[in-house]
Amino acid sequence: MNKEITSRSADYAQWYNDLILKAQLADYSAVRGCMVIKPYGYALWENMRDVLDKMFKDTGHQNAYFPIFVPKNLFEAEEKNAEGFAKECAVVTHYRLKNDPERPGKLMVDPEAKLEEELVVRPTSEAIIWNTYKNWIQSYRDLPLLINQWANVVRWEMRTRLFLRTAEFLWQEGHTAHATKEEALEETMKMLRVYADFAENYMALPVIQGVKSPNERFAGAEDTYCIEALMQDGKALQAGTSHFLGQNFAKAFEVKFADKANKMEYVWATSWGVSTRLIGALVMAHSDDDGLILPPKIAPIQVVIVPIYKGEDTKSNIDERAEMLMKELKAKGISVKYDNSDTARPGWKFAEYEMKGVPVRVALGLRDIENNVAEVARRDTKEKKSVSLDGLGDYIIGLLDDIQQHIFNKAKTFRDANIRKADTWEEFENILDQQAGFIAAHWDGSPETEALIKEKTRATIRCIPMDAEQEEGRCILTGKPSRQRVLFARAY
Amino acid sequence: MNKEITSRSADYAQWYNDLILKAQLADYSAVRGCMVIKPYGYALWENMRDVLDKMFKDTGHQNAYFPIFVPKNLFEAEEKNAEGFAKECAVVTHYRLKNDPERPGKLMVDPEAKLEEELVVRPTSEAIIWNTYKNWIQSYRDLPLLINQWANVVRWEMRTRLFLRTAEFLWQEGHTAHATKEEALEETMKMLRVYADFAENYMALPVIQGVKSPNERFAGAEDTYCIEALMQDGKALQAGTSHFLGQNFAKAFEVKFADKANKMEYVWATSWGVSTRLIGALVMAHSDDDGLILPPKIAPIQVVIVPIYKGEDTKSNIDERAEMLMKELKAKGISVKYDNSDTARPGWKFAEYEMKGVPVRVALGLRDIENNVAEVARRDTKEKKSVSLDGLGDYIIGLLDDIQQHIFNKAKTFRDANIRKADTWEEFENILDQQAGFIAAHWDGSPETEALIKEKTRATIRCIPMDAEQEEGRCILTGKPSRQRVLFARAY
Repeated sequence: MNKEITSRSADYAQWYNDLILKAQLADYSAVRGCMVIKPYGYALWENMRDVLDKMFKDTGHQNAYFPIFVPKNLFEAEEKNAEGFAKECAVVTHYRLKNDPERPGKLMVDPEAKLEEELVVRPTSEAIIWNTYKNWIQSYRDLPLLINQWANVVRWEMRTRLFLRTAEFLWQEGHTAHATKEEALEETMKMLRVYADFAENYMALPVIQGVKSPNERFAGAEDTYCIEALMQDGKALQAGTSHFLGQNFAKAFEVKFADKANKMEYVWATSWGVSTRLIGALVMAHSDDDGLILPPKIAPIQVVIVPIYKGEDTKSNIDERAEMLMKELKAKGISVKYDNSDTARPGWKFAEYEMKGVPVRVALGLRDIENNVAEVARRDTKEKKSVSLDGLGDYIIGLLDDIQQHIFNKAKTFRDANIRKADTWEEFENILDQQAGFIAAHWDGSPETEALIKEKTRATIRCIPMDAEQEEGRCILTGKPSRQRVLFARAY
Repeated sequence: MNKEITSRSADYAQWYNDLILKAQLADYSAVRGCMVIKPYGYALWENMRDVLDKMFKDTGHQNAYFPIFVPKNLFEAEEKNAEGFAKECAVVTHYRLKNDPERPGKLMVDPEAKLEEELVVRPTSEAIIWNTYKNWIQSYRDLPLLINQWANVVRWEMRTRLFLRTAEFLWQEGHTAHATKEEALEETMKMLRVYADFAENYMALPVIQGVKSPNERFAGAEDTYCIEALMQDGKALQAGTSHFLGQNFAKAFEVKFADKANKMEYVWATSWGVSTRLIGALVMAHSDDDGLILPPKIAPIQVVIVPIYKGEDTKSNIDERAEMLMKELKAKGISVKYDNSDTARPGWKFAEYEMKGVPVRVALGLRDIENNVAEVARRDTKEKKSVSLDGLGDYIIGLLDDIQQHIFNKAKTFRDANIRKADTWEEFENILDQQAGFIAAHWDGSPETEALIKEKTRATIRCIPMDAEQEEGRCILTGKPSRQRVLFARAY
């Protein structure tokens, strides 16, 4: 166990914070609720972004960029959306500072530079984007419009946590416009599948695809689809959402198009997003008391080579062999670091790269080279093995695949073991308090019941799973009839 | 001449705006002074960003992300920097909206949600970053710190123009920390050279490297180095800056490090940036009355193939040959589009891709295929040529190189022809009014003289060129002695 971080069993929340800080993913900042994403954390985000960006482009989307500010009168146009975000808006009211006459060297907001119309710092961009689409869409020939934006957004959350909930965060938001309801629904589902593919096959994070209950829907959406993941402490985490927006924004911003029969119709919309929150999910799903465990496909450093030597004379021989291995791995597209700094001992380096979750560590000493071997350690299981230097590159590539698969399997086994059925209220409460995880239970379908369950237990409906079988039953709380189980959990 | 855009000779400023809008690089937005970067413009920015990002990483820099907000009390810590930007700061004063009791369905700023400390939307990030570096730097082992950030920034400009001067823009800002003055100066110059390399070898934009006069220095810098380009109307444009910040920010934020002798010293700093403004420079430097002319190395689409056909039966043969060519070009890393839409005629498509500045157009008809040729047109010179289909891929690759070089040469010839010496005030004024361009003239070195020249003529000192020869002379305005000519121009 790494002494610098609290163990999961001692304090899961503290373990998470320690890990984020010690692994140098992020740091606190001087701005309430905002974080600094440090180079190692940002490199991880870049890898995630690049994979997603390619997936978006491969499905026909283009990137664009819209203003960070939304004038208040546009922001309030779609009433449900406005109502949903109004309580957490940072608002720009002035456009100038001036010298404070009473405090030399200090500045004050210039009262004469007050904006006539206040500007909301975007918490999400539907309003500013649909106000723009109005000018871009005239006829069916302008549709579909398939646009994505990588941007920062601000939501003034009262309780914040690094990555999981910050006042400012980075995300992507897709905003598409379609001629028909069917096409918009198809897009909504397509992007949900893209997110599930990314979560499972790159982040090694098993997810459940489903639709949100009305209480958990995105403000302004007709339906919100989501991917839900399970963390090691048994709490759920919403990892991505894809919204079918119907014609709500088209009506709020008067976006109509002439169809093939030259009839004017309102446009159909979707929006979908994932954010830097995913990094929090990644950390909490896989890591252990020694530090991060990162899936090889998105790890900033996939392999680290550490030389084991005493004295400079032996080091140069190791350097030479390490350079050869680096070259071999880089040629195969592997991101590799050779840490031959002499300010730290090998043991310290081992702990450091375990903390940082580097999937494979290669230790190389002079005796190893004489024996034509290296010691290869995998981060996920901590297994060490002496491997021949001949074909070591190929061995490592195979090992990286193994690790990727193993991390996923482990998370999936844990997740699957933590979906439990509850048929009585007592069972429901017992599972929640003693085992946590997802609970598959019947619900009468009313928002009031959902709210009451949340009030009593802090558990929410995470989703109505897409593949759930139809089954007659009775609501866990009210006993009213129900046709399908939904998934409850306490969540991040 | 494209009828949709004003000609340069009729109205250069209007030509520029028409071009940005018609080529679909950007659009106006509902937010005063903010633009929407449309997919074609954003694809161009992505290409530029990717090249620069690789250059930064190849020179040892890492990306990170810092908060968009700067608390006012941090913002004012470095007084010159604060004074320089105070007049154009967007300020967040509240964190919540609420229902307006007097106007149902409308929102108002909640007066109870006033921030104790106002937040400035970053116009530049030195303050927030150096306040963070304070916690990251303790000893010489923590140095150098070589960090870059890709971000949006806001400067409340009174007069805005698409790309050239917008209230919000995208940029990168490097912020580095060093143990010695020499090392910081070296970094400043290294990044200036990176910018010059990028401008000349990717954007095909010849630039003059130099140092700014005190009046034009970045607020808070000891010295500002810049690359200056010349637009077709004879006005100069600052295309990138690299600042030597001395110990100003280290002193403002108390950032000290223990050197090897364990003595506490203030850290030395640099910062450097380029922005979406470069897109404006690109457009104004190369384009013509028919539309954009884009350098192949950063063009979103390098080659467009347009089928020439009458009737569906002939089209399928062309499709087949075009797909072959596409495959060949893509395999060579060329970005290629086959526009076989049947909603527009070839002539319309030709004009459209000329407008968009696609460097190479291949027209392919049935008779061409029978003769084993295609018509290849280059956007820069408008030359057309019938080229054999055998080896067409290689021909096009050579042509793209040619075009890249030709665009640069043309801009350089124009630039070099528009650097004129002036030795009297009359000459100076005559050149400014009749020929524009850069004027190499003597200046007495005083900020007062510089300000007076600007007041009289709107011309500013663009830079003191790095490679200028020492030459005795007399100031163009005051007649006082001078040792070196500096470059004046009216500028964007």
